[in-house]
Amino acid sequence: MTIFHHINSCSSTKARRGRVNTRHGSFDTPAFMPVGTQATVKAMCPEELVAIGAQIILGNTYHLYLRPGHRLIEKLGGLHEFMAWDRPILTDSGGFQVFSLAQFRKIEEEGAVFRSHIDGSLHKLTPELAIEVQQSLGADIMMCLDTCIPFPATDREVRESTALTTRWARRCLAARRRGELLLFPIVQGGMDPVLRAAHTQELVSMGFDGIALGGLSVGEPKEMLFEMIGVSRPLIPEKYPVYVMGVGTPEDIVMGVSLGVDMFDCVMPTRNARNGMLFTSTGRIVIKNACHADDPRPVDEKCGCYTCRTFSRAYLRHLFIARELLAYRLNTIHNLHFYLNLMKQIRESIERDEFAGFMRDFFACRS
Amino acid sequence: MTIFHHINSCSSTKARRGRVNTRHGSFDTPAFMPVGTQATVKAMCPEELVAIGAQIILGNTYHLYLRPGHRLIEKLGGLHEFMAWDRPILTDSGGFQVFSLAQFRKIEEEGAVFRSHIDGSLHKLTPELAIEVQQSLGADIMMCLDTCIPFPATDREVRESTALTTRWARRCLAARRRGELLLFPIVQGGMDPVLRAAHTQELVSMGFDGIALGGLSVGEPKEMLFEMIGVSRPLIPEKYPVYVMGVGTPEDIVMGVSLGVDMFDCVMPTRNARNGMLFTSTGRIVIKNACHADDPRPVDEKCGCYTCRTFSRAYLRHLFIARELLAYRLNTIHNLHFYLNLMKQIRESIERDEFAGFMRDFFACRS
Repeated sequence: MTIFHHINSCSSTKARRGRVNTRHGSFDTPAFMPVGTQATVKAMCPEELVAIGAQIILGNTYHLYLRPGHRLIEKLGGLHEFMAWDRPILTDSGGFQVFSLAQFRKIEEEGAVFRSHIDGSLHKLTPELAIEVQQSLGADIMMCLDTCIPFPATDREVRESTALTTRWARRCLAARRRGELLLFPIVQGGMDPVLRAAHTQELVSMGFDGIALGGLSVGEPKEMLFEMIGVSRPLIPEKYPVYVMGVGTPEDIVMGVSLGVDMFDCVMPTRNARNGMLFTSTGRIVIKNACHADDPRPVDEKCGCYTCRTFSRAYLRHLFIARELLAYRLNTIHNLHFYLNLMKQIRESIERDEFAGFMRDFFACRS
Repeated sequence: MTIFHHINSCSSTKARRGRVNTRHGSFDTPAFMPVGTQATVKAMCPEELVAIGAQIILGNTYHLYLRPGHRLIEKLGGLHEFMAWDRPILTDSGGFQVFSLAQFRKIEEEGAVFRSHIDGSLHKLTPELAIEVQQSLGADIMMCLDTCIPFPATDREVRESTALTTRWARRCLAARRRGELLLFPIVQGGMDPVLRAAHTQELVSMGFDGIALGGLSVGEPKEMLFEMIGVSRPLIPEKYPVYVMGVGTPEDIVMGVSLGVDMFDCVMPTRNARNGMLFTSTGRIVIKNACHADDPRPVDEKCGCYTCRTFSRAYLRHLFIARELLAYRLNTIHNLHFYLNLMKQIRESIERDEFAGFMRDFFACRS
């Protein structure tokens, strides 16, 4: 089975339209993956995700390993069965969460030693365990365990950490028993173009199913994010889906697509929804603001989501101020619909070879 | 328009099957009304409520008056439009919440003076204001402002409080401008059968659209609850829908139906759902208990709700322990479905004149 099916490319940018095949069906690229950290995209049920156009979601290995445990999920038929989601799932390796969430961490050659943020218990996440967990979950796309490099970092830190990520990627590849589960390594290299390029080439040469660009969106200036994507992307053969992890704003995604990225994920639409920040075609709004108190209009008059078809800004503001559970759900539906609809527009514009114009208009109405 | 359409009665109990007509359509009785305190049945969207069989919901005057304010809701088209619910709504009068929630309260002849539990602001809820608020909301069934009598209370407290409730009921009737909105008074009388009977007769004589029995489920023994219903019920003419406020457990409801009650409301199914207590055909379960950790079965194998059709106890336990928003929603769907399905079974058994048998089986499998 071909993993990446290329449909067409933009004639004036690196944007491309394709489809990634997995054992739970295919998803269209460029794709955005809603984040379902703990076996649920927060506040959403599977049917709602399908209704707003989600074709693939992301699960977090770190969280599911700690709670409820990958063995339990495996025993119950795997992550798809457990959460009643029958489309593709990508799981990360847990490396980033060890870096960002664990109470304590120490990187050793063998793996990452850390204490759980839930109960303080001590764990060692090795490349082999990361693969074991993801295989138990039954992820359609697995990620290799990587080390996360803070920004800024010294040359030595970047060099050593990147080399370790390579050794871990090799161990992950060796640990994979279930061949039908796709495996992507993660390019590191800090913000050093030479190291990024070398690491990209090294990982490409190892024979994975796709390539992820990691260690980005960690606080670096935007130009640097796009520069690093620009360094790696041309070194990755056409046949590999390219995934930029943890990116990003709608603007970042449009830029990323123009640089040839196929897959994105970010907590922004879901997390911001729960904080009352909503994306609209004319900018962002903060729903708790008093100006929305008696506004009978939907969040976005151009939006066709359930929330906008059914409820006013005034109602959403009331729910949010009253801390009603329905607030988080309705806001999440809207923001995810915004992101997934953006991806749909991007894909359609590439199909018609009108992406350059789409991008120009997109940024024009934001400046 | 006839308000209460009587369909048939049980030949061996006082149970009856009917339909109440309102300007937003009719609902079948015996009916259970899910509680939508702040213009939302917590965690539910309107379509879900319809799917699980809700025909009428309850809104809380006290809460909506304080936040977002009845004037605002009126300006936005009324409560139905505001919360996108186009079926009947009953609103309480706010009296019980002043009694149970407000930071401070003082009952005067004029009305109830209280401080908001939200911001401590001072308010006076008069019978006229209670009606004004409910008219602004556009409730299909409004309740008269009543005084709540604690249990236990002295004879004098009960007597004075009940007399004040009568005077307030008269003022509510006089304050009603919108005749298409139905108005029910609330029978008080503490736990004194003589006072209860007298109050029932007095309110019946005043010409309302139905009768509510209040001041019950306030901590009194169960026998007393049923005794008080038994005292009032025979004094209420056939043409009035009879509503017992804030009742109750599934057992209480079945008993209430057998005594001739038509309408019930209670926060139990929704609140317990959020606390992880689920009703099943074989008893109640606490979903966080370790015994459910790896249980692949649904909450109730006999249940046809979305939650039971889709997810395992193990998954629901995981969501609850991880405090995921979806937990509250899936649990609420299940518990409300349990209550509304119970009402459906009750109605069908009365239609077939098999309610006595239904009741016997219902209590047999609980003892």
